[in-house]
Amino acid sequence: MTTVVRRRMGVEERKRQLISVALELFSHRSPEDVSIDEIAAAAGISRPLVYHYFPGKQSLYEAALRHAADELADRFTEPHEGPLGARLLRVMGRFFDFVDGHGPGFFALMRGGPAVGSSTANAMIDEVRQTAYEQIMAHLGVRNPPARLELIVRSWVSLAESTALIWLDGRRIPRGELESQLVHDFAALTAVSAAYDDEMAGILLRIVADEPADGPFGDLLGRLTRLGQRAQA
Amino acid sequence: MTTVVRRRMGVEERKRQLISVALELFSHRSPEDVSIDEIAAAAGISRPLVYHYFPGKQSLYEAALRHAADELADRFTEPHEGPLGARLLRVMGRFFDFVDGHGPGFFALMRGGPAVGSSTANAMIDEVRQTAYEQIMAHLGVRNPPARLELIVRSWVSLAESTALIWLDGRRIPRGELESQLVHDFAALTAVSAAYDDEMAGILLRIVADEPADGPFGDLLGRLTRLGQRAQA
Repeated sequence: MTTVVRRRMGVEERKRQLISVALELFSHRSPEDVSIDEIAAAAGISRPLVYHYFPGKQSLYEAALRHAADELADRFTEPHEGPLGARLLRVMGRFFDFVDGHGPGFFALMRGGPAVGSSTANAMIDEVRQTAYEQIMAHLGVRNPPARLELIVRSWVSLAESTALIWLDGRRIPRGELESQLVHDFAALTAVSAAYDDEMAGILLRIVADEPADGPFGDLLGRLTRLGQRAQA
Repeated sequence: MTTVVRRRMGVEERKRQLISVALELFSHRSPEDVSIDEIAAAAGISRPLVYHYFPGKQSLYEAALRHAADELADRFTEPHEGPLGARLLRVMGRFFDFVDGHGPGFFALMRGGPAVGSSTANAMIDEVRQTAYEQIMAHLGVRNPPARLELIVRSWVSLAESTALIWLDGRRIPRGELESQLVHDFAALTAVSAAYDDEMAGILLRIVADEPADGPFGDLLGRLTRLGQRAQA
C-alpha cells in the first residue's frame, strides 16, 4: 500500500499546474474533446476545485491559450548575430518543435477549437502573429519598412502557419525539410517582389550580400541557377 | 405622392432578396455591425417577416455565407486552355474582384465574424479552399499529386487569402500588382520545392516548357536572372 502525500499548493502554483495539465491533454486531443473532469482527474483534484480556480471551461481554455501563445511568441526570439538565413532556420526549428509538441492543440487553436471565434482567442492569435512579424522585421534591420516588405513578412508568417497545419495532417513530409523550405520560401517571396520593385531589390541585395555560399540562401541560389539552366536547355 | 406597388414574392425569391440585401450591407460593414432591423429596412419588409424566412440571425448569416462561398469558389473556374501562367492570372483577377467587392464581409468571414467559429462556417470556408485546391490541381494536370505538390497548392491558396486580407487593410499596394505577384509566388514556391526534389523538378520543368517568354512565368524568370547577376556582381 502506498501513501499519497498531497502537498498543498498556493493559488498561482495550482493555476499553473492546471494550465500545464490542460496543455498536456490538448497536445494529444482537441480541446473540444477534453472535459473538465479529465483535467481534474489528471491534476488529482476535484471538479469543483477546478472551477474554484477557473470559473468556466472557457476561462481555463483562455488561460492555457495565453500560456501557449506566450511560449509560441518566445520561439521567434533569436540573437541578432550571424547570417539571416541561419537565424531564420533556427527560428523555424523552434517553431516546428512547438507545433510537433502541441499537435492537436495547435491545430484547434488555428482552425476552430472551442476558444476560437471568441474575440479573446482571436486577439491572442493576432498578438503572436504580430510578435513574429516584429521579430523578423527586427532581424531584417529595416526601419520604416515599405508596404511591400510588410506584406511579405506578414504573409510569410501566415505561410509558416499554413505549412505547419498541412504538415500536421498526416506528417507526410519530414519536418526538417519544411523548416528549410520555409526559409527558402522567405527568400523566394522577397525575390519575386524585388524582381518588380527597386526598393525591394535594394533590400534583398543588402540581405544576400552577407550570406555565405553554403548557407540556406546561398545553397538555394546555386540550385535555382542550375534548375534555370535545365529549363532553358 | 408616390404609390409604392409592392409585388408579392415567392418564398425562394424573398430568401434570395434577403441574402442579396445582407451581402450588400456586409460588403460595406462587418456582419457583426449589421442588424436584422437594417436588413429588414433595406429589403422593405418588417423585422418579423425576416424571421419568418430566416429563424435567427445566424441562419441568415449562414445563408449569405453559403451564397458568397459558392460565388468565391466559382471564381476559380477557368477554361483549360493556353499557358498556365495566364490562366492563374485571370483567376487571381476574379479573386480580387470578389475581395474588392465584398471587403468587410470577406474580412469578417476569414478573420472572425459572428459566423466564424461555428462549425458550419468553418466547413464552408474549408469547402472553398478545397474547391480552389482541386481547380488549381486540375490545371496542373497532375494525377495522384505527390505530398510536396499538394502542400504547395494548399499553402498557395492560403497565401492568396492572407495577401488579400493584408491588402484590404489600407489597400496600400495596387491590386493588379498583387494579382501578378501571387502568380509569381506560385512559380517561386514550386521552384523552391523543385530545387530540392527531383519529382517536383520534373513537374516544374514540364509546366514552364509550355510557357511563353512574355507570359508571367517567363517574365519573372528573365527578371530573376538579372537580379541574380546583380547579387553575384
